[in-house]
Amino acid sequence: MNLRFALLAALSAKPRTGYDLIAVFDRSVGNVWHAEHPQIYPELRRMESDGLIVAREVPRGPNSTKREYRLTDDGLAELRLQASTPVEPGHERDPYRLKAAYLEYADPKGAQDQFRLHLEHFTKLADHYEQILVTLHEGTDSVLNERLELMPPEQHERIVASRILSYEGLLARAEMELKWARKGLKVLDELAQSELDATDGVVDLSGADDQGRQ
Amino acid sequence: MNLRFALLAALSAKPRTGYDLIAVFDRSVGNVWHAEHPQIYPELRRMESDGLIVAREVPRGPNSTKREYRLTDDGLAELRLQASTPVEPGHERDPYRLKAAYLEYADPKGAQDQFRLHLEHFTKLADHYEQILVTLHEGTDSVLNERLELMPPEQHERIVASRILSYEGLLARAEMELKWARKGLKVLDELAQSELDATDGVVDLSGADDQGRQ
Repeated sequence: MNLRFALLAALSAKPRTGYDLIAVFDRSVGNVWHAEHPQIYPELRRMESDGLIVAREVPRGPNSTKREYRLTDDGLAELRLQASTPVEPGHERDPYRLKAAYLEYADPKGAQDQFRLHLEHFTKLADHYEQILVTLHEGTDSVLNERLELMPPEQHERIVASRILSYEGLLARAEMELKWARKGLKVLDELAQSELDATDGVVDLSGADDQGRQ
Repeated sequence: MNLRFALLAALSAKPRTGYDLIAVFDRSVGNVWHAEHPQIYPELRRMESDGLIVAREVPRGPNSTKREYRLTDDGLAELRLQASTPVEPGHERDPYRLKAAYLEYADPKGAQDQFRLHLEHFTKLADHYEQILVTLHEGTDSVLNERLELMPPEQHERIVASRILSYEGLLARAEMELKWARKGLKVLDELAQSELDATDGVVDLSGADDQGRQ
């Protein structure tokens, strides 16, 4: 249902060929809802058979054609319906916090690598979202600008504000993850130090004991 | 794989009957990785046939028995392996930010309801995580205490620190979601006001125009 919503949204600005749709998808809504390209065509066919989009053949060069998809009235109604229907938040299924909850079973290297990978991943994502937010604020996001040109001016403010709100949310999550992964690395260091101190304590005592007996 | 890890973790303190396991699961690791009860028994059977756990019949009252599951050496090794193997972070698939990115297609009520539901959901979760964190810090979490009694003292610090790190992460995410949902409601209010002002402006101008012609 989320992929369908994402595709309806990507087609809502104007009709697009599959190739064009996928290029736009990857540069816009695919940042929020990733889809592998082989997932997209079957979903488009299902949407077509459900009457949400129609395809027509348009020329590609002198001797060939390509399919161009456009939203039907039913498709636009479905997009509006999904956009207006609150989604009940799902149950917690958090793979990162699950792993972190049982660090006593992890070897020290594996646990560190997990947090470092986490840091690396969300650093990249945060940078990516920040760049997108700059283009959204500056008015230089080409996918957004193409849409704004086709939409009535009275909708522009809402369109831009929605995109910014969405990417601000993604950025806030990435920043939360970065902070948490840094804390995870700190906790691992502190545990290692504390466990080393405990071992040193035992060695020291035994050394003192040996000396006492000499 | 995550459910399997969660069940291995839940069984790692001591052998448990299915009933006991599910009760403990819901009060501990199920907070991080939710599973419906009908999912749990089939996974236990798969883990049994994979040699990760064994079941034995233990008495239930005078005339009946129940199955008690315990981790095998292979099961403990699998738990350690999974705990030590970093998970590559997945692609972004964020249903909340997806919806928020296209507010121009939502009716005002539906959009507001979405953010309010979000607030309500993550307020409850944040409260729940805060309560658990209090019991973890105070040493009054009964599931954790049962485990600590069975585990060597030199592991206690790591065990407690892991649980706290995990719930702190869940709490940080819930707080991020709350902040974002509040921002969402604020953005909706501002958009409504701005769009109202624009309409008022048109009305005023047309009024002025009418007056000018009178």
